[in-house]
Amino acid sequence: MTEQTRFDLPQDRMPTSWFNIMPSIVQAGMQPLPPLHPATKEPVGPADLLPLFPESLILQEVSTDEWIDIPGAVLDAYRLWRPSPLQRAVRLEKALQTTARIYYKYEGVSPAGSHKPNTAIAQVHYNKEAGTKRIATETGAGQWGSAVSMACAFFGVDCQVFMVKASYEQKPYRRVFMETFGAEVVASPSPTTQAGKKILEDNPDSTGSLGIAISEAVETAAMSGGSIKYALGSVLNHVLLHQTVIGLEAKAQMELAGDTPDVVIGCVGGGSNYAGLAYPFMADRLSGAKPAMRFLATEPAACPTLTKGRFAYDFGDTAGMAPIVPMYTLGHTFVPAPVHAGGLRYHGDAPSLSLLVHAGHMEAAAYSQNDVFEAAIQFAKTEGIVAAPESAHAIRGAINEAIAARDANEERVILFNLSGHGAFDMQAYDDYLHGRLPEVEFDPAAEQSALSQLPDVPPIA
Amino acid sequence: MTEQTRFDLPQDRMPTSWFNIMPSIVQAGMQPLPPLHPATKEPVGPADLLPLFPESLILQEVSTDEWIDIPGAVLDAYRLWRPSPLQRAVRLEKALQTTARIYYKYEGVSPAGSHKPNTAIAQVHYNKEAGTKRIATETGAGQWGSAVSMACAFFGVDCQVFMVKASYEQKPYRRVFMETFGAEVVASPSPTTQAGKKILEDNPDSTGSLGIAISEAVETAAMSGGSIKYALGSVLNHVLLHQTVIGLEAKAQMELAGDTPDVVIGCVGGGSNYAGLAYPFMADRLSGAKPAMRFLATEPAACPTLTKGRFAYDFGDTAGMAPIVPMYTLGHTFVPAPVHAGGLRYHGDAPSLSLLVHAGHMEAAAYSQNDVFEAAIQFAKTEGIVAAPESAHAIRGAINEAIAARDANEERVILFNLSGHGAFDMQAYDDYLHGRLPEVEFDPAAEQSALSQLPDVPPIA
Repeated sequence: MTEQTRFDLPQDRMPTSWFNIMPSIVQAGMQPLPPLHPATKEPVGPADLLPLFPESLILQEVSTDEWIDIPGAVLDAYRLWRPSPLQRAVRLEKALQTTARIYYKYEGVSPAGSHKPNTAIAQVHYNKEAGTKRIATETGAGQWGSAVSMACAFFGVDCQVFMVKASYEQKPYRRVFMETFGAEVVASPSPTTQAGKKILEDNPDSTGSLGIAISEAVETAAMSGGSIKYALGSVLNHVLLHQTVIGLEAKAQMELAGDTPDVVIGCVGGGSNYAGLAYPFMADRLSGAKPAMRFLATEPAACPTLTKGRFAYDFGDTAGMAPIVPMYTLGHTFVPAPVHAGGLRYHGDAPSLSLLVHAGHMEAAAYSQNDVFEAAIQFAKTEGIVAAPESAHAIRGAINEAIAARDANEERVILFNLSGHGAFDMQAYDDYLHGRLPEVEFDPAAEQSALSQLPDVPPIA
Repeated sequence: MTEQTRFDLPQDRMPTSWFNIMPSIVQAGMQPLPPLHPATKEPVGPADLLPLFPESLILQEVSTDEWIDIPGAVLDAYRLWRPSPLQRAVRLEKALQTTARIYYKYEGVSPAGSHKPNTAIAQVHYNKEAGTKRIATETGAGQWGSAVSMACAFFGVDCQVFMVKASYEQKPYRRVFMETFGAEVVASPSPTTQAGKKILEDNPDSTGSLGIAISEAVETAAMSGGSIKYALGSVLNHVLLHQTVIGLEAKAQMELAGDTPDVVIGCVGGGSNYAGLAYPFMADRLSGAKPAMRFLATEPAACPTLTKGRFAYDFGDTAGMAPIVPMYTLGHTFVPAPVHAGGLRYHGDAPSLSLLVHAGHMEAAAYSQNDVFEAAIQFAKTEGIVAAPESAHAIRGAINEAIAARDANEERVILFNLSGHGAFDMQAYDDYLHGRLPEVEFDPAAEQSALSQLPDVPPIA
């Protein structure tokens, strides 16, 4: 018999509740600040969000309950791929000659290829229950749009996806993937919204950004008179909540492996895949049960929100239609360079995750594109999986930790989230393999310019 | 608690032996005919195959043992994704309003995205043990080449892939995927081999075929003086043998589900994914334990080997360098129309599978491209998985059976193999969605011309 390297959770141990980190954050003495209305600058109340979301999701957004039941219809859909695998990366460990043990949770086995269906299915389910006929959303790299498209097909809801134009043009197969599920895909900025029209008037060649696409989707829902709702793939509390199935499974699987992580790693765009893995573990750090457990958020050097951004109130979108939230931000008008990790090109981060970084419970590191793809290739050659460029940031972080452990001759246990596969990202790999991947420099001047446009609200102390 | 629809096999129940159908075939009174040497036309002996394969694989090719142990290093690699899931397609059943129960075994969760690593890993392992430094192989749609590239990266063996030129040009991302694992990918026909040169002289614009690419890879190995070996992704006994992990797992999983299939379905190019699922079940039909269990092989109308081919001795490749084998064939010079299911564009079929069809133990059906993609879209919208065009032939077969069961008001249990995902096949979906997919007609004249070039050996009785 050979060594066990895969730790499968039986079907009957799939989580039946999501874990809400907010009570743990409050109990640990941190004070989450409320989101503000973009027009009134007053704290947003549930009623302000009704044009965008069904009431059930708004209640989750502000919930102070630690556990929230997963509806049966959502569990049924989760069973198409959950529980997802937890693997020990023994081939990678050997290649690195490390004293560390490296584990990864793999979310790329979902039909849409990433962690995004965990919340897409939940959101579409609640919308269906509330009578929503059509959902508008945005997508950068395409993983979120793919997940919403699939979920809408399952529940019989129409779907419109505003896809960042740079991705729309670079990744036509992502568009086709969404259309296969019946979604209507529009390049953003588009002439179908006021926000899109304004951007196109100022800059007809705009290749778009996540912030712009969010503005378009939000406007589409807000102006629909109730028939269309909006769905967001990250940042908000209820989105991160749904992703905690990842970490709840991983905790049980690490127990099966007989190991406890010393460091928990993930990539951060808005923060949902990382929070999904990390928050169930973070609860143990905040409670004092595992005070030394480390948490490492990884991001692209071209969009270094956590490592170089400001902790401030800022708009969630570019046009200033979305709520103003307290987060690390590079400024809502900051347009990151077009790195291949399109899902990480967001100017801000989830408020809860920002708060944890700000309070010192979470570290952050930024990596260059070429360093990230070097790690991705080493991972593919040893573990077989060709990762999404976003997820490869987590691989880079895990490899760096394993090398540091080797150099210190430490028996470090590393756990990271491999949030998706890279089958739609082969152009990026081709560019890397042929030395065509530019080392994108972060532009502090652009950041300063963007930060000067923060909303006129009191700074966070 | 909601209904169980996914039947996971625990790690410790992963098969540790492969199942060899040949003893069952002989015991059932069928007489497999030997492969013949392409030059001498005499039965091929193990020594004839040594320039191409390591001895361990040749012994498996001619083995009369019913069970063959899976080496530990192969099991270790299988654990990256095995046991693979068995799902009941409840959403599809509901959409079809069928009285049937539909189950599918999903091989697309492998890192390479299909069933092919089941044998690629085994073949590269045995080559590594035998001291092989480099492997030459061919690929059509790219799934086999991807699997060999990955396996070679795992075991530290160099890899050269002759990729059918039509695919090389249509699917550059498949090429990049293989290159990510370090493989050298060459468009076939290529000027690097005599076989390729000859084809290019006759037809400089040749877009290639699987038969031509096989000739090039075989020649590369045969002319290397022993340093390079050849690997084939289907047709041969040892390849089908390795794939039986699929069916062995599926049998155990159907027991977990408390069901027995009435009909077992798969798509057939060379036959490996279907044999992999079917043979462990077929043994029960041949032994008389389940005499009424039905088996349905599905294929494209553009390359209808089993439904319109001749059961005859024919070359395995186009140039006539590979052994002459007894199989259903359209003639080794037959070049199928460029349908999107590139993995099914092979002029022949595995001899063992051909024999079972010829003896009436297996049915066959051919479907047009548009019928296949219609089924694939329905499957994506209900079960979430966007299937490879090859695998979608099995979906079409399963849906047809489910509709027939509904019309007959029968409680039919359907099991099919979903052999891979379609993330690299979105152009095909785009063509279908936009009505650009031609209804390819099978050309009987081309078949007659090709069949007139069968090797000069006695016809099979």
